Amino acid sequence: MIIVLKKGATEQEIEHVAERIKSLGLAVHISKGKERTIMGAIGDEEKLSALPLEAIPGVESVVPILKPYKLVSREFRKEASVVDVLGVRFGETEVVVIAGPCSVENKESIVDAAKKVKAAGAKVLRGGAFKPRTSPYDFQGLGIEGLKLLQEAKKATGLPIISELMDPRDTELLCEYVDIIQIGARNMQNFRLLTEAGRTKKPVLLKRGLSATIKEFLMSAEYIAAQGNANIILCERGIRTFETATRNTLDLSAVPVLKEETHLPIVVDPSHAVGRWALVGPLALAAVAVGADGLMIEVHPDPENALCDGAQSLKPAKFAHLMEDVKKVALAIGRRV
Amino acid sequence: MIIVLKKGATEQEIEHVAERIKSLGLAVHISKGKERTIMGAIGDEEKLSALPLEAIPGVESVVPILKPYKLVSREFRKEASVVDVLGVRFGETEVVVIAGPCSVENKESIVDAAKKVKAAGAKVLRGGAFKPRTSPYDFQGLGIEGLKLLQEAKKATGLPIISELMDPRDTELLCEYVDIIQIGARNMQNFRLLTEAGRTKKPVLLKRGLSATIKEFLMSAEYIAAQGNANIILCERGIRTFETATRNTLDLSAVPVLKEETHLPIVVDPSHAVGRWALVGPLALAAVAVGADGLMIEVHPDPENALCDGAQSLKPAKFAHLMEDVKKVALAIGRRV
Amino acid sequence: MIIVLKKGATEQEIEHVAERIKSLGLAVHISKGKERTIMGAIGDEEKLSALPLEAIPGVESVVPILKPYKLVSREFRKEASVVDVLGVRFGETEVVVIAGPCSVENKESIVDAAKKVKAAGAKVLRGGAFKPRTSPYDFQGLGIEGLKLLQEAKKATGLPIISELMDPRDTELLCEYVDIIQIGARNMQNFRLLTEAGRTKKPVLLKRGLSATIKEFLMSAEYIAAQGNANIILCERGIRTFETATRNTLDLSAVPVLKEETHLPIVVDPSHAVGRWALVGPLALAAVAVGADGLMIEVHPDPENALCDGAQSLKPAKFAHLMEDVKKVALAIGRRV
Amino acid sequence: MIIVLKKGATEQEIEHVAERIKSLGLAVHISKGKERTIMGAIGDEEKLSALPLEAIPGVESVVPILKPYKLVSREFRKEASVVDVLGVRFGETEVVVIAGPCSVENKESIVDAAKKVKAAGAKVLRGGAFKPRTSPYDFQGLGIEGLKLLQEAKKATGLPIISELMDPRDTELLCEYVDIIQIGARNMQNFRLLTEAGRTKKPVLLKRGLSATIKEFLMSAEYIAAQGNANIILCERGIRTFETATRNTLDLSAVPVLKEETHLPIVVDPSHAVGRWALVGPLALAAVAVGADGLMIEVHPDPENALCDGAQSLKPAKFAHLMEDVKKVALAIGRRV
Repeated sequence: MIIVLKKGATEQEIEHVAERIKSLGLAVHISKGKERTIMGAIGDEEKLSALPLEAIPGVESVVPILKPYKLVSREFRKEASVVDVLGVRFGETEVVVIAGPCSVENKESIVDAAKKVKAAGAKVLRGGAFKPRTSPYDFQGLGIEGLKLLQEAKKATGLPIISELMDPRDTELLCEYVDIIQIGARNMQNFRLLTEAGRTKKPVLLKRGLSATIKEFLMSAEYIAAQGNANIILCERGIRTFETATRNTLDLSAVPVLKEETHLPIVVDPSHAVGRWALVGPLALAAVAVGADGLMIEVHPDPENALCDGAQSLKPAKFAHLMEDVKKVALAIGRRV
Repeated sequence: MIIVLKKGATEQEIEHVAERIKSLGLAVHISKGKERTIMGAIGDEEKLSALPLEAIPGVESVVPILKPYKLVSREFRKEASVVDVLGVRFGETEVVVIAGPCSVENKESIVDAAKKVKAAGAKVLRGGAFKPRTSPYDFQGLGIEGLKLLQEAKKATGLPIISELMDPRDTELLCEYVDIIQIGARNMQNFRLLTEAGRTKKPVLLKRGLSATIKEFLMSAEYIAAQGNANIILCERGIRTFETATRNTLDLSAVPVLKEETHLPIVVDPSHAVGRWALVGPLALAAVAVGADGLMIEVHPDPENALCDGAQSLKPAKFAHLMEDVKKVALAIGRRV
Repeated sequence: MIIVLKKGATEQEIEHVAERIKSLGLAVHISKGKERTIMGAIGDEEKLSALPLEAIPGVESVVPILKPYKLVSREFRKEASVVDVLGVRFGETEVVVIAGPCSVENKESIVDAAKKVKAAGAKVLRGGAFKPRTSPYDFQGLGIEGLKLLQEAKKATGLPIISELMDPRDTELLCEYVDIIQIGARNMQNFRLLTEAGRTKKPVLLKRGLSATIKEFLMSAEYIAAQGNANIILCERGIRTFETATRNTLDLSAVPVLKEETHLPIVVDPSHAVGRWALVGPLALAAVAVGADGLMIEVHPDPENALCDGAQSLKPAKFAHLMEDVKKVALAIGRRV
Repeated sequence: MIIVLKKGATEQEIEHVAERIKSLGLAVHISKGKERTIMGAIGDEEKLSALPLEAIPGVESVVPILKPYKLVSREFRKEASVVDVLGVRFGETEVVVIAGPCSVENKESIVDAAKKVKAAGAKVLRGGAFKPRTSPYDFQGLGIEGLKLLQEAKKATGLPIISELMDPRDTELLCEYVDIIQIGARNMQNFRLLTEAGRTKKPVLLKRGLSATIKEFLMSAEYIAAQGNANIILCERGIRTFETATRNTLDLSAVPVLKEETHLPIVVDPSHAVGRWALVGPLALAAVAVGADGLMIEVHPDPENALCDGAQSLKPAKFAHLMEDVKKVALAIGRRV
């Protein structure tokens, strides 16, 4: 950690800052320039994070040098992690495709969707049972009934299931039914939920919050890892910007940045990012080209009658067609679907 | 709701869209221009929200006309609401000041802080017992022990207490100790938590999420109101923008916009928005001038040793000095502290 | 254009608004719902744009229906435009690659760069002679000397030249030397510069402003087109968001959105968006996969000694390697380089 | 400047970086921690700005310590600057109010506006002659005719005149007519225009760009100062964020931040920031309370018929009423209007 002192900081102030740092067991290097004195704190930077250095007189700014995340960092583990979900492996050569409707609506529709996405090449079935909705008056999902229907779809197709956890009190229940726990974007900093998900040891797909920096995204993953659960899949799904032509702005740069920073696999959800089915295809291809380990795509047998997110859902035939292109792009960069 | 059809939409497509709307019991007005056909749906707009009109062929865009929030809207209730907390009234002429440390640390410090902020004119004591922290390795609060210490401070000063709820499972416990439940910015769209807070009937202070639009902010308040709890205080605390000179960007325009849209009282928290104590004073004055019903300010007897947010906490003497200025500005606009 | 009246707008107010619209020669449809009266203005919407409808008592909001851009819109021209630059064609099957250093530094270096990028498959040479720099103390480019060196590189390789126009007074001079006029992101709404570029009839590459919406981007293109110059190439180069891990956030969704909205060709510049050479490759591939008609990439023979943007420049060998991958991805989606 | 080396940087790499820095005449301090080696460069940091240190192998990141702006910085000049415009002084106790219509339309209207804003207490008259408009089809201003009408209004009232410069070729002409040159938000990084404005020695009001950081804002002021013109007034006018309830988000935190960073006076324009007249009043009061040295407010005798920005213009009577409140808030914080 580097501490930049104010121009004109007194000897006494400088000394006081140095003492505070030393009292925590770190060594201090002081370097006096013409314009500014700067101080390097050498040792366990974590100890310093508790100390509000900026509140100490004479301090202008504090520059952390080390990354705040540990277990999820590339420095902690050099090789890419692989998250195995009933034999489906995220983080290897294969680009894994998760597909299905926004929410589970009834048995016929979810089983139909499952069969069709499987036939097109999807390896995991998505479907919401508990739905986070901006309005209290919108359809909130079928709850446990929805989880049971997902089980039916799994039975019919063999596809592993992913569904969202919204409440720490549902953790145990959800785990009986799903193969991957999804933490939604709105709950990315719901630390209690992260902690519960961490305790389960189930694979967790963590979506990036709408206004979360990549650093904060990884800190939330660290909450899960800190409970001993290393089965974490990250999911970029668009961030909030000033642009209104798309629902959110898909940040594909995040994929190579995350590849540098972490060993965890990264999946991209273009459906929620753009909010319109006609844009999902090109961005899915771009996500594969940029290096994502998987895709998460909304597919609904009858989008016009979907209870949720119909506007961004692909019909099964369009999805099958897209999968053909996804395969070609994957091959072009040495991967496969 | 207005539906704009695509240029070149066929008669059949137009007819189909109209049928779908009528099937929900709404009337349809069709208006054919040279360039575009537009369609107005007259009736209960809410019924339409379930229908993914954008997914229907021929539809270009959908423009909602009515506000999605009801119970919290100015249209629903013309006069300003007053939220009464043990006689402290938010939403009337008085500008109510909430002050105290970021987190409760020990008895001596919280009682000391309570006495000092009360002497300076604060009417409510803040203090975190459960702390949402970006890093799992940072101080997470004293939990129930912290709530007990807040009670001690209340006993010593008579100040009502506000503290944050992070987990639906803590709701009952928290309610035994606090007079206002705080929902933090990171949980603004934690819909389960909102629902629990709504069920309690306790006053709830709802902080705006870092990337929440004003509309989403009010929809989250609607979640609380929909449970029958109308004792809601809104809190603007800065939004996330590209600017890095302050921690967040305090959106003071939100105050007059909210005054137009809702009858609920609005409080401003400049401390979390700016992240540096030296900037808190000017923004507190601006918040009063722009029409806020209250302020929420971090005050710590010894910021240099605070376990959390020391850099943005005012010392009690600085806070007392600020309160003098706050009073003057309040008087200038016909209010009082 | 749709005008939403305030709840409780009087008959007189509604009448007055209708009169104002009719006085401009448009027809008015009034539709009274239970909650709101809305009014549709049918006819030449452009005439209304001068009328500040929101300033008229009783008006709540105004919703434009038609796009504000005309000449550059897909509605105006259904087929994709092709911009021909000495036989290099933007907007057809080929993905055209523009490459070269940020700024022209000396003859040897620019000729060397030109030969190497040509050998790797680039079709246009970029190089700044006039440089917009955030700091007045940074290198501002070689000016006319730089333009002459670009000519030398063109003579040596046959590659057409693109360079930036910063000042309307330089237009004529620049046109003598370059084959494509570049308008930089910071000047996207420098309307005088757009007008001058429009008057030249030279191909113009227009970069999206850091905080420009896609609508504003197209309105700026419309400024050029309105002068009779239809040779416009759009360039997405990243927008400003809260994320600091990359210099800007490359908005690849903009490519398919622009393909819907406009007939103009679209190029992507990943180098300026991300600001770090290690991220340029994956994003270049993503740009091709998402449907861009070209790429613009910074290549410098010796980045460590570049006078500008060294950190984001690829070395020629890395660029050649990237071009191999670009070709593969282009083929996978049915295009070529 | 501090250079953070990558974990695992070799001795040779570290040595090479140090050599590069020393070759520019700076001293180097190397500090080896357990996790990272960091290097402090002591001396003239500006020389380093040309060197793309991030492009050198082994370098992870570069942290500048000194501010990039000099002449406009508080370090360069401790006391607040005063900009005198025909006796009207920006930067002292008085809060100076600039008012007038968006654009000059005709003699009667501008003279009328001038008289009314003067009567209410405004000290400078604003009015656009050259108008930057998003659409090429919108009213572009009266040009030189508009400047002449502003002169008439000045003759009638004695109010100094401010009007916008859009093109370096108009500089001389504009200077004959106006007392303050305005540089608009869209041209904040039009470096040629800044340079021309700097050469005139006239007072310049520089508006913050929609997506400009405070640092970039000051760098643009530095462009003007670097030409020897220290008569610079800064103007905060809202930044672009995700929020759409207001046209832009007025960043009032920028005022105290700028007061720390620079000696230049700061004015706030709430009219352009919010885009709706009903919100202008509260934000004007907030701007005074936060410490602005002046206000810039759009006033039009007949907003409903304004050729530009009618929706955000106050009628003269409302403006006069607002001025009464502005005076009270100014007095409350020890200033005056």
